[in-house]
Amino acid sequence: MKRRLLLVSNSTLHGGGYLDHCQQHICDFFGKDVKRVLFVPYALHDRDAYTKTARNKFKTLGYEVDSIHEAADPVAAVGGAEAIFIGGGNTFRLLKSLYDNKVVTEIRRRVMEQDGIPYMGSSAGTNVATISINTTNDMPIVYPPSFSAIGLVPFNINPHYLDPDPHSRHMGETREQRITQYHEEPDTQSVLGLREGSMLLVEGNKATLLGSTKARLFSRCPTLV
Amino acid sequence: MKRRLLLVSNSTLHGGGYLDHCQQHICDFFGKDVKRVLFVPYALHDRDAYTKTARNKFKTLGYEVDSIHEAADPVAAVGGAEAIFIGGGNTFRLLKSLYDNKVVTEIRRRVMEQDGIPYMGSSAGTNVATISINTTNDMPIVYPPSFSAIGLVPFNINPHYLDPDPHSRHMGETREQRITQYHEEPDTQSVLGLREGSMLLVEGNKATLLGSTKARLFSRCPTLV
Repeated sequence: MKRRLLLVSNSTLHGGGYLDHCQQHICDFFGKDVKRVLFVPYALHDRDAYTKTARNKFKTLGYEVDSIHEAADPVAAVGGAEAIFIGGGNTFRLLKSLYDNKVVTEIRRRVMEQDGIPYMGSSAGTNVATISINTTNDMPIVYPPSFSAIGLVPFNINPHYLDPDPHSRHMGETREQRITQYHEEPDTQSVLGLREGSMLLVEGNKATLLGSTKARLFSRCPTLV
Repeated sequence: MKRRLLLVSNSTLHGGGYLDHCQQHICDFFGKDVKRVLFVPYALHDRDAYTKTARNKFKTLGYEVDSIHEAADPVAAVGGAEAIFIGGGNTFRLLKSLYDNKVVTEIRRRVMEQDGIPYMGSSAGTNVATISINTTNDMPIVYPPSFSAIGLVPFNINPHYLDPDPHSRHMGETREQRITQYHEEPDTQSVLGLREGSMLLVEGNKATLLGSTKARLFSRCPTLV
């Protein structure tokens, strides 16, 4: 399997502009062969504005952007894409739209096939690339037909991972406690807590952590439950 | 309609013990007629330990606790209850268990009927009392058959509401941004952002905000979308 994925924790890092912190990695990832990237803006409500933002940024990196929401046939757009980028926003809205537009299977096929296309995801776009959206941080604003996602990797990711703050007076669960609750459930997967500023490069069966902030891996204890 | 609800934002306030910050309100709410409270521990994995915590606390307030998970027939337990308390934890796990045990309709019936029983919820137990769990903060660790909840009030609540922190360097969405995303969707309801330390007392058609931290009401702009 030759899959190539760039799974970014966050689209914007504090103090920088959209995708600034990972722009060199984006260029290295798509390289010189890719000319056009198919953008999926489903995670935000204003798809036109979102596409404009992505298009402007990718233009500065030397890539043209086609948006799936501008295509007459979304499945055909995936079928003919050279590369794909799914942007961040609300993960529930994103996954529901992917199902509504019937592109979940087609994206998986195009990325996982022989000589598959490169897939970049950011935040919610990283969540939907994994086995399920069970470890998103987002609010469940809409009800998708399933929490199963595109499944390009056999584990889960928690983007924007935040370490517990020992000085916090807020009593809502920490991210660590929430992931522990996930692992109390049967048949759950490992979770990579990807801090803002980090990204995971997947090439075939090899995964490389990029960026400066590292990540935290949560494995389910087999004797738990 | 004579419904009586006490919807608490959080079970524990920083620096205090379990339900300490609202114990006087709990006594005022259940009063002297109620002797036994039916506890629903579905939101946490260890139901026995959770029941022990609730039982010990309520004993100090003068109430006996029966747990629904110790009853042979959960629907019959709701049918015969004098009062009900649904505790916090993970909202998705809680709502799924309420559906799995077929008690959603029976709880609604018992609370909303003539001379209905008092309902207390905390955190996740407050979320499931509303029209839907679309505005929970929890991680979607399991997939419930619907996000529709018990529907004791015709709006949504965001428990543990957090005001935006102007000094934060974290780029994940603020609570305000998440609720705005919810309101971008069609047919969505008003959301009461209930800060930790606050609770809502509902008596018939009258709602009174209790506690010291107040709340923030988010209404959907009719011209939005």
